[in-house]
Amino acid sequence: MTTPVVAIAYHSGYGHTAVLAEAVRDGAVDAGAEVHLIKVDEITDEQWALLDRADAIVFGSPTYMGTASGAFHVFAEASSKRWFGQDWKDKLAAGFTNSGSKSGDKLHTLQFFQILAAQHGMHWVNLGLHPGWNNSAGSEHDLNRLGVFAGAAAQTNVDEGPEAVHKSDIATAEHLGRRVTETARTFTAGRTSLAA
Amino acid sequence: MTTPVVAIAYHSGYGHTAVLAEAVRDGAVDAGAEVHLIKVDEITDEQWALLDRADAIVFGSPTYMGTASGAFHVFAEASSKRWFGQDWKDKLAAGFTNSGSKSGDKLHTLQFFQILAAQHGMHWVNLGLHPGWNNSAGSEHDLNRLGVFAGAAAQTNVDEGPEAVHKSDIATAEHLGRRVTETARTFTAGRTSLAA
Amino acid sequence: MTTPVVAIAYHSGYGHTAVLAEAVRDGAVDAGAEVHLIKVDEITDEQWALLDRADAIVFGSPTYMGTASGAFHVFAEASSKRWFGQDWKDKLAAGFTNSGSKSGDKLHTLQFFQILAAQHGMHWVNLGLHPGWNNSAGSEHDLNRLGVFAGAAAQTNVDEGPEAVHKSDIATAEHLGRRVTETARTFTAGRTSLAA
Amino acid sequence: MTTPVVAIAYHSGYGHTAVLAEAVRDGAVDAGAEVHLIKVDEITDEQWALLDRADAIVFGSPTYMGTASGAFHVFAEASSKRWFGQDWKDKLAAGFTNSGSKSGDKLHTLQFFQILAAQHGMHWVNLGLHPGWNNSAGSEHDLNRLGVFAGAAAQTNVDEGPEAVHKSDIATAEHLGRRVTETARTFTAGRTSLAA
Repeated sequence: MTTPVVAIAYHSGYGHTAVLAEAVRDGAVDAGAEVHLIKVDEITDEQWALLDRADAIVFGSPTYMGTASGAFHVFAEASSKRWFGQDWKDKLAAGFTNSGSKSGDKLHTLQFFQILAAQHGMHWVNLGLHPGWNNSAGSEHDLNRLGVFAGAAAQTNVDEGPEAVHKSDIATAEHLGRRVTETARTFTAGRTSLAA
Repeated sequence: MTTPVVAIAYHSGYGHTAVLAEAVRDGAVDAGAEVHLIKVDEITDEQWALLDRADAIVFGSPTYMGTASGAFHVFAEASSKRWFGQDWKDKLAAGFTNSGSKSGDKLHTLQFFQILAAQHGMHWVNLGLHPGWNNSAGSEHDLNRLGVFAGAAAQTNVDEGPEAVHKSDIATAEHLGRRVTETARTFTAGRTSLAA
Repeated sequence: MTTPVVAIAYHSGYGHTAVLAEAVRDGAVDAGAEVHLIKVDEITDEQWALLDRADAIVFGSPTYMGTASGAFHVFAEASSKRWFGQDWKDKLAAGFTNSGSKSGDKLHTLQFFQILAAQHGMHWVNLGLHPGWNNSAGSEHDLNRLGVFAGAAAQTNVDEGPEAVHKSDIATAEHLGRRVTETARTFTAGRTSLAA
Repeated sequence: MTTPVVAIAYHSGYGHTAVLAEAVRDGAVDAGAEVHLIKVDEITDEQWALLDRADAIVFGSPTYMGTASGAFHVFAEASSKRWFGQDWKDKLAAGFTNSGSKSGDKLHTLQFFQILAAQHGMHWVNLGLHPGWNNSAGSEHDLNRLGVFAGAAAQTNVDEGPEAVHKSDIATAEHLGRRVTETARTFTAGRTSLAA
């Protein structure tokens, strides 16, 4: 059985998004992936090469002013070098984001990740979770407590540090890491099987 | 001083969105508007004429499957009769929505309302509120507790009825009604002043 | 080698979108799929069952007033019955749309399809094509002449019938049908291989 | 009669978007505005102050990889300093973009501008034009030939320089400049009138 290669290309401003990136990594490792955490604001040529050979790239950024951070956008623009040759075509893509508000235009950040993946001809892996139950019992402990579907979303209070990232949001990001890995494994096994 | 005419064109499946529509109305009345609540799934020719003479139209719908309800979309498609003559051009537009999740793709519903307004050549009035503080004190009592900017958003637990719509979300919708009315008053006064 | 089952769930107002649906079908058949064309405004229980057993569902609709048609949205809302059990989870999804304008907010229709797929936990298959060259030679004959990436987009002059759908747009839709089929085949083969 | 102050905050990579910025300026000047062209990648403190005192801010950027350029996004993130005090609240906002494709995800760039405006509590001025006729006569000479509604969109062939920006797209950008100016004049006159 092949080992899926999952790259997590992320920017974190104050450490909250880094916590999510590590959760995605943990989920992916748990599902058997070789995982590479890549800070896009410090990306090296070697790391670009890691992205090129990954089976799946998971994009991550805080949501600032309603979209990904400036640093992430600079990376996204630089990825146009891979776009010309459609080097990332048919890879899997997914995404995660954190902001200080429950909603906070996080959907727009995830949709930007989807647009970026579409330009690259990648396949988009959605979260695949029901929303956590928002019922009169008031549970905040379920996966996907915010009810986001295109990726993993987190809300962290604006006066708290990375240690305060919500446990449910971390578990949701871990779920995404596992799901991306399992989907990548299926795809790769399919390619191998059809080529045999 | 002129009295702005505000029409609220909405669909409510189970009554939650109707509570928001009434809150928008209350805010608009409070700010001095003549307000018309219009259920788009039962809209009459007289009500289409009300939309035609309104200074502002506020769109409202639950978010189902990530967008406005089917009933609202049938109304939006029917508004193409007004589109051909650009009959609603330069009116103000705004929007509100409710869903069972904190986020729940409500942004996509509001962005659809924005697209609809753009097609009609209307001006879009955003919420104009900071997000409610999501801090370690855990306040849920502020306006805009969910952190949405393009309109008024509400989250109501899926096992509760219209009486359970969150007080902060109702106050946020009231704010939107006041804001739309005041903006419409300014616009109308400007037109009168420039024509004098 | 398994035969992928591809369902095309579409609405066509005046026949242009039906031409695209048939092109997606032709591409899918060419790539070896079992294909089912389903008109969502006349959908039967048997056809809902076909959707349930499909490996991939391709959504199609004209773009009216900046989004899918009212009839398509009524279908999308009705798909919530499948959402509760996440019955379509892990299926593939893709989309296509036609409008009278080159751009015409078609992206919003495709993004709505993506949101619908996300709610269902499906994987989204992007078009996977460079934009047709928009250069000084003025070629309009390439695939993806409009430069859309999230799905297949077509522009048909508003005073012409279905016979006038652009040849390049038809070829682009055929490409999407092939691509969805090949991706579904890979995915299915992977599942079979991993289960062996 | 007051003179509206219109600031055009834009980034241009290769000069095409600069042509549009100048067209917006020309339209605004024609309608009687005091206009300031501001390159966001070289913005000075004095120019931030100009943005602060403008009645309307028009955002402009090329569409790269499906959104505004990295340089524009860095500016947008930096505008968070104005967001904390909601310094731009109730100003008008509008937008324009250019890309090499007819569609090319330009809508996403304009929607990002709308999100940015929403976060700042600004009012969004849509284009207010029917789409140019895409009919069998093949006219490409109308305003809004691409059929975009949320702002002014242009398509320039990828192998041509700024001198090749389409005449209709330039005229569409001029229209936007006039429209923003006239709307700002109305709004300002209304405030003056109501304060009297």
